[in-house]
Amino acid sequence: MEQNCDFLKLRRLGVDTHQEPVVYMRQDCHVAIAEGFTAQSRVEVCTEGHSTIASLALVSNDLLSHQEAAVSEAAWRLLGEPQDGERLSFRHARAVDSMSFVRGKLYGERFTQQTASAVIRDIKAGRYSDIQLSAFVTACAGDRLNLEETIALTEAMVASGQRFDWGSDNILDKHCVGGLPGNRTTPIVTAIVAANGLTMPKTSSRAITSPAGTADTMETMTRVQLEFEQMRRVVEQQGACLAWGGSVSLSPTDDIVIRVERALDLDSEGQLVASVISKKVAAGARQVLIDIPVGPTAKVRSADKARRLQQLLENTGAALGLQVRTLVTDGSQPIGRGIGPALEARDVLQVLMNDSQAPQDLREKSLCLAAEMLEMSASAAPGDGLAMARETLDSGRAMAKFRAICEAQGGFKQPQMAPHSHTICAEKHGVVAYFNNRFIARLASLAGAPTAPAAGMDVHVRLGDNVQAGSPLFTLYAQAPGELAYALEFLDGHTDVIRIEEETV
Amino acid sequence: MEQNCDFLKLRRLGVDTHQEPVVYMRQDCHVAIAEGFTAQSRVEVCTEGHSTIASLALVSNDLLSHQEAAVSEAAWRLLGEPQDGERLSFRHARAVDSMSFVRGKLYGERFTQQTASAVIRDIKAGRYSDIQLSAFVTACAGDRLNLEETIALTEAMVASGQRFDWGSDNILDKHCVGGLPGNRTTPIVTAIVAANGLTMPKTSSRAITSPAGTADTMETMTRVQLEFEQMRRVVEQQGACLAWGGSVSLSPTDDIVIRVERALDLDSEGQLVASVISKKVAAGARQVLIDIPVGPTAKVRSADKARRLQQLLENTGAALGLQVRTLVTDGSQPIGRGIGPALEARDVLQVLMNDSQAPQDLREKSLCLAAEMLEMSASAAPGDGLAMARETLDSGRAMAKFRAICEAQGGFKQPQMAPHSHTICAEKHGVVAYFNNRFIARLASLAGAPTAPAAGMDVHVRLGDNVQAGSPLFTLYAQAPGELAYALEFLDGHTDVIRIEEETV
Repeated sequence: MEQNCDFLKLRRLGVDTHQEPVVYMRQDCHVAIAEGFTAQSRVEVCTEGHSTIASLALVSNDLLSHQEAAVSEAAWRLLGEPQDGERLSFRHARAVDSMSFVRGKLYGERFTQQTASAVIRDIKAGRYSDIQLSAFVTACAGDRLNLEETIALTEAMVASGQRFDWGSDNILDKHCVGGLPGNRTTPIVTAIVAANGLTMPKTSSRAITSPAGTADTMETMTRVQLEFEQMRRVVEQQGACLAWGGSVSLSPTDDIVIRVERALDLDSEGQLVASVISKKVAAGARQVLIDIPVGPTAKVRSADKARRLQQLLENTGAALGLQVRTLVTDGSQPIGRGIGPALEARDVLQVLMNDSQAPQDLREKSLCLAAEMLEMSASAAPGDGLAMARETLDSGRAMAKFRAICEAQGGFKQPQMAPHSHTICAEKHGVVAYFNNRFIARLASLAGAPTAPAAGMDVHVRLGDNVQAGSPLFTLYAQAPGELAYALEFLDGHTDVIRIEEETV
Repeated sequence: MEQNCDFLKLRRLGVDTHQEPVVYMRQDCHVAIAEGFTAQSRVEVCTEGHSTIASLALVSNDLLSHQEAAVSEAAWRLLGEPQDGERLSFRHARAVDSMSFVRGKLYGERFTQQTASAVIRDIKAGRYSDIQLSAFVTACAGDRLNLEETIALTEAMVASGQRFDWGSDNILDKHCVGGLPGNRTTPIVTAIVAANGLTMPKTSSRAITSPAGTADTMETMTRVQLEFEQMRRVVEQQGACLAWGGSVSLSPTDDIVIRVERALDLDSEGQLVASVISKKVAAGARQVLIDIPVGPTAKVRSADKARRLQQLLENTGAALGLQVRTLVTDGSQPIGRGIGPALEARDVLQVLMNDSQAPQDLREKSLCLAAEMLEMSASAAPGDGLAMARETLDSGRAMAKFRAICEAQGGFKQPQMAPHSHTICAEKHGVVAYFNNRFIARLASLAGAPTAPAAGMDVHVRLGDNVQAGSPLFTLYAQAPGELAYALEFLDGHTDVIRIEEETV
């Protein structure tokens, strides 16, 4: 009874379309004709054991035979990495029912636990096209999610992935809401906390719109793609890990959403809170410290915004059984020297090794955060956290713990530096009066960070520094000359990256 | 001084990705390495005389040589249809500056004339990716555009394309805001109006979320892709045309936006008004009649919504020098018998030919709209329009004018009927009490309309009809068995397409 005419033979085309699955077939093959497929149809593709939804590209020439269908790398992975020649069947993809909840949201309806779960389930199953993902992200942007919706979304995201249970209530975590270039305190804080016998199963994101996330930085020094059981072993052995959240499948839809947010250069407050809290809950944390840098060009720009975000984080955390403490910090200038995965890793190592070149602002901020966490967990008495953190760092115990964590994750390596660089100098003498953090992040991104791990920039000055004409302000690093040129071109149109003002006595 | 290493040789891959331009190159070719390109990078591609922005797909095998870059059909067209072997150069696409206005809109800022123009210019130039287009469409949805923004967007859309000037003030047009399946009055009204010596340069859209637009229906009977000058000649000769708006480049960004709206099944009120008014203004119209069907499952569902839309249409029109009259009509059930391009064309021809089988509701509604327009233009005295319209139709003058318009556009042909059909019958006797217009449109779409022009459905009953168990309610038509099966599957889950209620005496 089986009809052979419904099948095409798989060919792995070797085309990388990033995360969006694409299927290619002849526009005049029997399947395309029988099903009435057109270019960009959403189709369901099935092998014996797997299926996925893909966008269709139609081929009009001999690239493929009439019996073949080719799949992009993303589609090939979602189909369970089948062999060439395996039989594929096709049908129109069902309309994605949960998109009606996204449309409802646009017309003023609120997400409920049920509708948020339906959306997140469909996103996880790969049923949303890029156009649909973009509509979901956009519908949530502009502070359009209230507390109830944020909680609903957070719970749906936790439920969509795996979840750790460490059998204890004293599980710590930290997070920074971002927007401040170079603010790479996490590896240092984690090492100090774990060196004092506490548990900190740290998972981090890759960059959203910034030039580096903690996962990007850690990846220049060790393996961050840990399976669920690998991560469990590292934490049980060392008390902590520094892993990429996406690889352990904690809140897995977050990474899909993040890719679209990056393409739109858009961060929504509700999505941000759901992303942060869902990852912490799924990692098994019970107490979380959240760093909120505030400054005129940081992600959070006013005390009002910070307060709103604090409340949303604390209340969403509380609804999911997580004690959240927030710390509003100075976001008026970058932290540390480097911006970009490897350059920030170099700073982190200098601090951990008590190098005389280590950026003192990164050291002090890390100590301050670690102190809070030691006190939060009652390891240090109130007021004693800072001394305890400093001792841990100065004695080399933090560095030893950091290396041990890296070794447990698969080995420690030195971050690589970039082959191309260009230094920008002050045009006049004066005082450093202003940093545009957004332009700085943009410059480092244009130079190739985080895709090129060694790319980015070093900032050589701090607010209030006296500079002479010709003294270096910052250095750009790139893996390829094209990217360096691209960053330099941006500078042509945007001179106000670091402002020097002449002193008026 | 020229560096050969910056170029790759073009190969037309013959892959149809619909409107989104895609470029393929080896991930290890010199250009990808030198520029630091990754999968889904947005890249600018240049030939000698043309350039476009495309999404990058990276190839990891021998599909391409290291000296080749392949382009999708959309990219090939945007590059001016170059020969194989032509030299292509590549660079990172600049960030799309106008996206900051879309982000601003999400955070409560308003579009101005300047920012709306910047967005529309970038969309026209192909600088928006599908993800970005989706964010723009979503940002405008849910009635988020006020009158000033709608006017700004409309003016920007008019300015982005060509514009007719007929040297007279008495230029008529009509439009229906849609949502009512089968409501194909335009060809009949245009024929009646033009047969009375008036000028009506009618351009129509293809379907957005419906199973057919007027352009789709007309295409089953004549050519609708007219160049600007061809359209001018047809109108000067016959007083009217029935063309596809997209081909004459009136408000050209509208068709790009419509494709994304279709993928999202989303119509925004402000976008709708900008779309309608910009096309009418660009077509050179001065007086427009707009049909707004209102019903529980039509696009406009309440008298309140209709009033809001009326005001937005009239005020936006007035700001652009267009006299708009709106007519709220009954939207509780489909108009005519057929739903789908060819099936609606059959109904139109039956009305024009005074066939005894002609659906009377389509005839009466067309006469009513034509009467309004004859009175609006002062061709008929107030109250005399209906008699004048009826005489034009009954005498055969309207049909003669319709054929003459089709001949002028390239010849008249009979619409083709579909090979596969399936009739659904009533399960019990009773009275037809309710039509779900959205489900009816969805069924016709699933059956393949408008992509398969002959696909769709015939509705055999009207509200209030008495039916017996087993009497036909509607018939589905499809070009391919797969599509028919898909529509039937939808019926499994959605029984309430047409509701029959037993009479309670």
